[in-house]
Parts: sequence; C-alpha cells; structure tokens
Amino acid sequence: MPKPVNSVLPVVLLGCGGVGRQLLHHIVSCRPLHAKQGVAIRVVGVADSSSLLVADDVHSSGFDDALLTNICDAKSAGSPLSSLLGQGPCQLFKNPEANVKVIDTATVLGRSTGLVLVDCSATYDTVGMLKHAVDHGCCVVLANKKPLTGAYEDFENLVSNFRRIRFESTVGAGLPVIASVTRIIASGDPISRIVGSLSGTLGYVMSELEDGKKISEIVKTAKSLGYTEPDPRDDLGGMDVARKALILARLLGQRISMEDINVESLYPRELGPDVMSTNDFLESGLVQLDKSMEERVKAASLKGNVIRYVCEIGSAGCQVGLRELPKDSPLGRLRGSDNVNRHRRTQVISKVEVYSRCYESSPLVIQGAGAGNDTTAAGVLADILDLQDLFQKTA
Amino acid sequence: MPKPVNSVLPVVLLGCGGVGRQLLHHIVSCRPLHAKQGVAIRVVGVADSSSLLVADDVHSSGFDDALLTNICDAKSAGSPLSSLLGQGPCQLFKNPEANVKVIDTATVLGRSTGLVLVDCSATYDTVGMLKHAVDHGCCVVLANKKPLTGAYEDFENLVSNFRRIRFESTVGAGLPVIASVTRIIASGDPISRIVGSLSGTLGYVMSELEDGKKISEIVKTAKSLGYTEPDPRDDLGGMDVARKALILARLLGQRISMEDINVESLYPRELGPDVMSTNDFLESGLVQLDKSMEERVKAASLKGNVIRYVCEIGSAGCQVGLRELPKDSPLGRLRGSDNVNRHRRTQVISKVEVYSRCYESSPLVIQGAGAGNDTTAAGVLADILDLQDLFQKTA
Repeated sequence: MPKPVNSVLPVVLLGCGGVGRQLLHHIVSCRPLHAKQGVAIRVVGVADSSSLLVADDVHSSGFDDALLTNICDAKSAGSPLSSLLGQGPCQLFKNPEANVKVIDTATVLGRSTGLVLVDCSATYDTVGMLKHAVDHGCCVVLANKKPLTGAYEDFENLVSNFRRIRFESTVGAGLPVIASVTRIIASGDPISRIVGSLSGTLGYVMSELEDGKKISEIVKTAKSLGYTEPDPRDDLGGMDVARKALILARLLGQRISMEDINVESLYPRELGPDVMSTNDFLESGLVQLDKSMEERVKAASLKGNVIRYVCEIGSAGCQVGLRELPKDSPLGRLRGSDNVNRHRRTQVISKVEVYSRCYESSPLVIQGAGAGNDTTAAGVLADILDLQDLFQKTA
Repeated sequence: MPKPVNSVLPVVLLGCGGVGRQLLHHIVSCRPLHAKQGVAIRVVGVADSSSLLVADDVHSSGFDDALLTNICDAKSAGSPLSSLLGQGPCQLFKNPEANVKVIDTATVLGRSTGLVLVDCSATYDTVGMLKHAVDHGCCVVLANKKPLTGAYEDFENLVSNFRRIRFESTVGAGLPVIASVTRIIASGDPISRIVGSLSGTLGYVMSELEDGKKISEIVKTAKSLGYTEPDPRDDLGGMDVARKALILARLLGQRISMEDINVESLYPRELGPDVMSTNDFLESGLVQLDKSMEERVKAASLKGNVIRYVCEIGSAGCQVGLRELPKDSPLGRLRGSDNVNRHRRTQVISKVEVYSRCYESSPLVIQGAGAGNDTTAAGVLADILDLQDLFQKTA
C-alpha cells in the first residue's frame, strides 16, 4: 500500500575521482531542494582505491555536509582519506579490510534501512561488492561501466532485480538514454536498432578531421584540453565505446560479451601499448595515421559524406567503428563539440537514435552534452533519487 | 526497507477513445513481459463519458483479458459499455452514479491495495475525481492535459505528492520529455529554457508551407489524413501547444495559468468558431489566410530562414507562436512529418530542446514521433509501470 513520501537513502560511494567528488558536491548543494521533496540522502561511507571512511553508526547517521566538502577538498588536493579522521564520528579501513567493511555495511543495512551502493570508480574490482550488495537487497547505482561489461553472469546477477539498479551515467553521461530505452522496453514497444555517437573524444576528433586538420594534431590538442584519457589510445582503440554498446545490447536482451563485438581501432597493433610507450605514440606513432585518415575523410567528402565513429546495436549484433554517413544525416550533422558559447566552454556532444515500433521511421533521438564530471554526476544523482520509493519510511 | 519485487497495480481507466483502447491492448499484449518482471496490471474499472464498468470485487480481481479485448472492440464499434454486461463479474454505473463509484473505488483502494487512476479522456470533468484520488493516497497517470492546465490550485493539488503522479504523454506523446526534465530538476541542475515544436499538426503545416504549398490546401489535406481535430481551428489556434507549454512551465516552477501565455493564433477572430461554422471555415475562411502566410514564408526564406510554430518557456515567461528560425538550426531542420518509410506510414515529429547548467551550449534535445495513439498509450503504460515500487507486496 502506498505510504506518505518520506524517504531516507543511505549511500556508500565507491570512487573519489572527478565524478565521485562532483556527486558529493551535488548532494550537499541539493539538500534544500530534496528536503522540499521529502527525500534525504545520507552518505554513510566513502571509499577510494585504497581505503574506506565510514560513519561510526551507519544505522542512524551519515557524514555531515562539512565533512563531505572536506572529503572533496582533500581528495582534490591529493590527500588520502585518512587525513579526514577526527573530523567526525567515523572510522578508516584500509584495503583489504575496507572491502570487507563495505560488504558488512551492505549486509547490515540491506536487512534494515536499505542501502544504495554508488560506484563512480573505473575498476572491475568492485563487482564482487556490488553483487553481494544486490544479493542482500541493496540498491546499486553505477557510473562505472566495467561491472556491467565483464562476464555476462555478472551483468545478469546485477540486473536480476531490475528495480534496484540504475546505470544511466554509464552511457552518454547524464543523457537520459538508459532511462528512455527502459521506458520503451517496459511499454512493450520492441526496439529493433540503436545507433549512436557515444564517444565525446572521438566525436571531437571526427569533427576536426572534417575541418581538414591532421589526426596527429587533433589528438595532441584534445589531450592538452583534457578530452582524452592519459593514454589517448584508450579512446582511439574504441573500447570505451564498445563498453557502452555492450551495455545497450545487453539491455536489449542480447546475451553477448566484449569479444562478440566487432571493434574497429583507429590505430594498428604496431602502434599499440605493447609495442610503444604513450610518449612514443604521441611523438612518432600518431603521425603515421595522418595519411590514411586524410584519404578516408577525402574519399567520403567526395561522395558528400562524412566519417563518424559510431556504435550500432541491432538484430545483426553489435558493431563499433568508423562509418561513412551522409553529411545531412542526423549523425552526420552532429558536430563533436561546440565551443562557440559565451563561456568559451567546450562541451562534447553525444547522440543516440532508437528505432522501435513506435519510433520506426522517426527514431527517438536523444542528443546533448555527453561527457563531463558535472553532467555525469548529475545523472548519478538523478538515478539515486529515482530509487526513493524503495526507501519510504512507514508512516 | 526494500522488499522483494512483486507488484500488483490496480487500475481504473477514464476514457475509452483511441488512446484508452490502445492502452488496454498494450496491457493485454504485455502480460508475459510484465510477468517476467514480477509486475501485474489489474484493470478493475473502465469508464467512458457516460458510464463506468467496474469489477464486482475490486479488492481481489480485475477484468480478464477477454473482457478487456471485448471492451476495445465494443467501443471501436460505437457500442456502449453496457453491452459488455454479463461477460464477467462486473457492474455498470451510469453518470452521475458512475463518478461517485469511481470516487468510492479510489477511497477504498487508496486505503488498502492502492490504485492508479489513469485519465485518457480529453475533458476537464475528471479533475474532481483525480484530486479526490490523490487525497486518498492513490496514484494518477494522465494523457489528458486538461486537469493540469486549469486552475493553478488544481495543478498544485495533483502534483502535491510528486512521486504518485506521472503525465509523460501530455507533452509529445510517448517522447520522454517530462521524465527527462524531471530527472534534470531532481539532480539540482537548474533549467533556464525549454524550446519546442510540440504540435504534430502544426509541424506538418509548416513543412508543407516551406515546400511552397498553400495553407488552405495543406490544412484540408491534413484534415483528410486525420492529422487535425474535427475543427482544424482547434489546432491552428495554438491552444493545444499552449497547454503543453503550460505543463512544462508549471513543472519548472512557474505559477502561471493559460491567460498568462502569449498565444499566437494562425487565424484571426473574424474566422473564429463564434463567427463561422467549421464547414464555412474550410470552404471560404481558410483561403483568406493563404496570401499572408505565403508572404511570411517568402520573407523568411529570403533571409535563409524558415517559419516554425514553437513554444518557449524561460525566465521571460511562456510564449507560443510563429517564429522565424535559421533553416539550419535544430528546430529549423525539423521536418514536421516523415512519410518516406517502407510502410508509407506518416509519423509526426516533435522536438524539444532543454537548456540548463549541464546542457548550456549543447542543449538536451529529444526528438521523435510525437503523436499517435500507439505512441501515446505506450507512454501511459511506461508511466504506470514507473509507479510499481509503490505497489510492492510485502514479502
């Protein structure tokens, strides 16, 4: 029976990188808004890759806003979580005890108040904790793609209770892609195909190539602007896009894994991380790609086409790679970034097209800023709040 | 504390028009899918404008699928709900007793199992029942725009418990506009502006005008294709777009009403329904608009622009009307309909741009088929299912 809305959501955050810290900031700054809506987020633990800071009494109280802000400041400055000890009623656990304590907390809170385990890390290592949490009735929110893109059994286990997991920010940052696809599936409208431009970095590279620049220059500029991973090959290899594609494909019911996806890398094996260092790749490897990319862009242009790095999920499985598309098609028109704005802030644009019975000739198109800590963390926060009906206090 | 997922949602449907009937069809055809997800929709009552068919025992059983299908068939054929009597354990109430019975059912189920009152009608008359249902802890799902666009107090009352109401299909049919805006608001990302092309009919008219056709011919064709209301002035006057704009504006927190919206009508008062009949308007009124519209389209075209009928909600309030936009802008590029598909089925496209802190220079764009009973009913069904966490059976 429906109860009066009054929800308290205990949260343990895994990962204190840019997204995790931004999430803590958002939680603090949204307190008044959420209070008006009768919902409160209680952060009871924060973990980084080496340790866990956890409230003394996870049942009844979380970190106060001053401590949450201090955690963000400390982690931004490169200080360890241990530097926060003594700023509130909390304890520190180092790995491997930290992981054990997360599991204990999930077990205990799963049986009483419930818990949302929020994974903003970028590692496979959390999957064991997450599965344990799900098994004990906890909820899970992921910005981290890896737990959903490993073994199919892990994916199946994590989504086995579909109402208790959200992972909007794994695909297109805060763009409502997963939420929209989930709505369409729930309404019994069968999705036949999803096509997307889902890498901010590669979107930027493609737009710049279209403007006649060399890929070696583009990638170096992108790296200096912070658009790429420390080793740009992590973007150029297409694995990040493949992970997003895999999540979408599994959401559509395809029982596939990474090895089933045809991924086109923008660099050959001879320029790979096993052969040369990041520095060597940037200094002497990248230029070797200039000529072939230039030819490819030119050949496309002669036909009125442009090159885009896209993923496609359909009845023929899942492909990730370069595609020649009409300049005037929805994905062809897409500019990878937009730096003409009053704040001179560059935003990277993602775009997804979803085809179904209802969206057959006119696909559902979702487009917008698809990267950035702010947008990603906003998506995580929206996911957490979307779980609030499971955390209603009884009247 | 989170409980095992196992939700039964009792539903009373108000309105047996195209959307309501399609919803019943979707509910029946999705049974196996929903069973897999541990959720069941139990239709305990169906009302049209004159009567209500209601299950004998609303507490424990709803209409079976055969009866639901028969209701659709009977209503399609123009038969009254009373023709279904005897096909199952149900009773019929005629107005005004029907309304009283809906209120009774909401009172009784609101206290026990909960109830979703689904309004697929097109009348203001349901607002009293809806408010009563909300007051008694029931949930409400609306495809009907009118209850949300009357007195501000009614809106406030209906959304007072925001987790218990959904109204996705009031704006852009099943397009995830309300769901996405709600997510953005929940994450504390302030929305500064929404711009949209939200009338399928007017989108079609604008595209055809751009192709050089006369508005009198376009509207007559649109009417013959079933794209317009029986009196096309209901579309051309802009009130339908204004209602959608008002819902979005109120969602953003603007305490405004219809009279606060600047609505541009495409026909002058001299051609209005108070002055001439629908037939006279079609035969002799419409042609009087040809010249001025043609001039307007030409003037825009000379500047490389096109004309679009848009709504804009921002800090300056809410406007609805014709706008000259660059041919190459997102809304300028939008074709009002797309009839180049293998099934030769014309779909009407809606498009919304949302600007916020996260989506500042690159707005969140949502686009797709934005009309049609199938799409609208799919949106209603997704809304109903989105409420399932409030209907979990205790383990």
